[in-house]
Amino acid sequence: MNASEFRRRGKEMVDYVANYLEGIEGRQVYPDVEPGYLRPLIPAAAPQEPDTFEDIISDIEKIIMPGAASPACTELETVMMDWLGKMLELPEAFLAGKAGEGGGVIQGSASEATLMALLAARTKVIHRLQAESPDLTQAAIMEKLVAYSSDQAHSSVERAGLIGGVKLKAIPSDGNFAMRASALQEALEGDKAAGLIPFFVVATLGTTTCCSFDNLLEVGPICNKEDVWLHIDAAYAGSAFICPEFRPLLNGVEFADSFNFNPHKWLLVNFDCSAMWVKKRADLTGAFRLDPTYLKHSHQDSGFITDYRHWQIPLGRRFRSLKMWFVFRMYGVKGLQAYIRKHVQLSHEFESLVRQDPRFEICAEVTLGLVCFRLKGSNKVNEALLQRINSAKKIHLVPCHLRDKFVLRFAICSRTVESAHVQVAWEHIKEMAANVLQAERK
Amino acid sequence: MNASEFRRRGKEMVDYVANYLEGIEGRQVYPDVEPGYLRPLIPAAAPQEPDTFEDIISDIEKIIMPGAASPACTELETVMMDWLGKMLELPEAFLAGKAGEGGGVIQGSASEATLMALLAARTKVIHRLQAESPDLTQAAIMEKLVAYSSDQAHSSVERAGLIGGVKLKAIPSDGNFAMRASALQEALEGDKAAGLIPFFVVATLGTTTCCSFDNLLEVGPICNKEDVWLHIDAAYAGSAFICPEFRPLLNGVEFADSFNFNPHKWLLVNFDCSAMWVKKRADLTGAFRLDPTYLKHSHQDSGFITDYRHWQIPLGRRFRSLKMWFVFRMYGVKGLQAYIRKHVQLSHEFESLVRQDPRFEICAEVTLGLVCFRLKGSNKVNEALLQRINSAKKIHLVPCHLRDKFVLRFAICSRTVESAHVQVAWEHIKEMAANVLQAERK
Repeated sequence: MNASEFRRRGKEMVDYVANYLEGIEGRQVYPDVEPGYLRPLIPAAAPQEPDTFEDIISDIEKIIMPGAASPACTELETVMMDWLGKMLELPEAFLAGKAGEGGGVIQGSASEATLMALLAARTKVIHRLQAESPDLTQAAIMEKLVAYSSDQAHSSVERAGLIGGVKLKAIPSDGNFAMRASALQEALEGDKAAGLIPFFVVATLGTTTCCSFDNLLEVGPICNKEDVWLHIDAAYAGSAFICPEFRPLLNGVEFADSFNFNPHKWLLVNFDCSAMWVKKRADLTGAFRLDPTYLKHSHQDSGFITDYRHWQIPLGRRFRSLKMWFVFRMYGVKGLQAYIRKHVQLSHEFESLVRQDPRFEICAEVTLGLVCFRLKGSNKVNEALLQRINSAKKIHLVPCHLRDKFVLRFAICSRTVESAHVQVAWEHIKEMAANVLQAERK
Repeated sequence: MNASEFRRRGKEMVDYVANYLEGIEGRQVYPDVEPGYLRPLIPAAAPQEPDTFEDIISDIEKIIMPGAASPACTELETVMMDWLGKMLELPEAFLAGKAGEGGGVIQGSASEATLMALLAARTKVIHRLQAESPDLTQAAIMEKLVAYSSDQAHSSVERAGLIGGVKLKAIPSDGNFAMRASALQEALEGDKAAGLIPFFVVATLGTTTCCSFDNLLEVGPICNKEDVWLHIDAAYAGSAFICPEFRPLLNGVEFADSFNFNPHKWLLVNFDCSAMWVKKRADLTGAFRLDPTYLKHSHQDSGFITDYRHWQIPLGRRFRSLKMWFVFRMYGVKGLQAYIRKHVQLSHEFESLVRQDPRFEICAEVTLGLVCFRLKGSNKVNEALLQRINSAKKIHLVPCHLRDKFVLRFAICSRTVESAHVQVAWEHIKEMAANVLQAERK
């Protein structure tokens, strides 16, 4: 949507809200619909081609308004998470469908998703061990629990461990910054021999530092064999998996218990919108419901009636699935795929510019929209380059350390980025680099 | 703001956003401002009288835009939380000021605030006990930790205990549904004698069921004497404390370590916006920072540079303080006080209608905007009345249990509610009651 259409549609929306407020006394205070009303009114999958804005707005009045905030808010979320799961070709087990045991939920951030997964895994292992040995206290078990992630994982994983009161160990990544079977297996064996209880592994697809990918096809089977919960954090990279050519990066998701990525990062849905799926919703809700027997009676968790407050830390919820509905329909799957592909193509364009300049080096494989690069030479000269670039305030780069190397990160992430911006940025970087190198020679 | 002004202002805002997007390439990618730039540009307290919309918008361009999303998002939040703290006459220790040790943060919900307080208290007591006895493991301490709240507290308190992996005990409330000194003291003594470690008390001001108030002036000193963290959950009632006549309900807050209420409930700020203050920000951030020594050097937590990601579960943050800024200025403190007073007056109006009808009884003292009432008689007849009312869908009531009594709750909570609505609702309730009583007689 360009600025001129935004002006028009935005003003129509303002009128829609004002009309709603003016006519509110004429509306019923409580909806007439029955649980499960919404799914049959909506296609089973996102459209391939864009829908018109008129169609979407007319569906708001027809489909959402009769369901008011509740149950429409819950039901649209369940269906949108199924749409998105299908776009990613997630295994069927992760979808809510009409009576599935899995399903998706919108969290606020990947940090919350990781924490929820860790807490669910913690409860599950405690229940299992207490069922085997009824004398074991929760504290006695928790003291021995160990969670694992790669040494490249986001700091929020370590934080989830702190909050959950369990140990978290970093598995050394390989030369491509990926977690591999051998290192994980070694850690698990060592800890089990020491009497500890491995219970949770976070695999990262698209690390923050350099967009590396843990080896799911190796790590997944180990987790399944050891009966350890596998959570996948694909916060940034997940959006790319809607493109068939990037979907292989997600192979191995079938071994996972939970999977998360952030449509607010790279799928044009405004912050916040973090999409999380689980294979067994009862694992997630069981961690926080006070009476587990209550879980089992009634069709409360049948896919028709989903009580999302048991899936998350806060109780209150916003109607975030509306953002997904609008974006998926206004772009269509093809439009979203084109958006991802353009960004990846632009990052390769930047990569090839860097590779053509012998003063620079590429520091990690470029897979999606991130290019890690640096001047060949000391960390000091690269720190000076970064400082010069960020002080000029023409572009802004966030650095990282890869092992001992100080590295600059060029991230393609704006909705409106074009090749011309990449060219201008590269010319600017070269100019700053020339200045830095000249200053160094003096 | 009425619907007609909303139409005008809303469309101006749409144009503002479109102009911003169209002109974005002309803007600098990184702000020029220094940390702490914002506070001197904004008054030290909220205005008493409303500001004009023009003034507010012009301040957006002058004050917010030069600070971009960062640091403006953080700094406006700190200042707005100080404004709001001053409206409530919170003790100075809770304010950030220019170099305070305390301060406020916007959480998503009261559940999150309670959880953050519990986690901070848990870390603090573990550190204290490990400093005294370095051989104590975290698990050995956690096994003995006990948190307390009234038996009227919200279920989210019990949930925080589950997530935090600590015991939570319910203190029997008195005849007015309030937690009192004697019952709390008895529980503490019993648990200490049994070798347990009391570490956290949640006092509720304005319970969900009947808007009762725990006795802070009794409970507070006990918590301080026992070195137990006192958290106050005033999710609903907190907004009323901006009125001097209701401020005495908050007396005793000076004994608390943390305090929370939800401006999104009753202060005209849209969901979500849950305001939380702590006396010692280091207690909160210390629970989640991986290197506590890092806390102490640099002026990172001086009130100028506040890293809110250490204050909450998620890492990402929305610019929620803008909502507060707009609302506080558009209403002025007097406008907000008038709004609260009107609601309280309307609830008393409903209360007196109920009291005039001998078939009904009032079930709890009416202090703010909630009236708990029922037909004199069995729970069954009241359940039938509720069902009849909610099936008619003219009004909607949410019930509760007070001890063994099934009780109806009439909540004044709409922005546009007037005496006429209360009258219509009461006539409707009387009609439904007559039908129920007649049906019973048959």
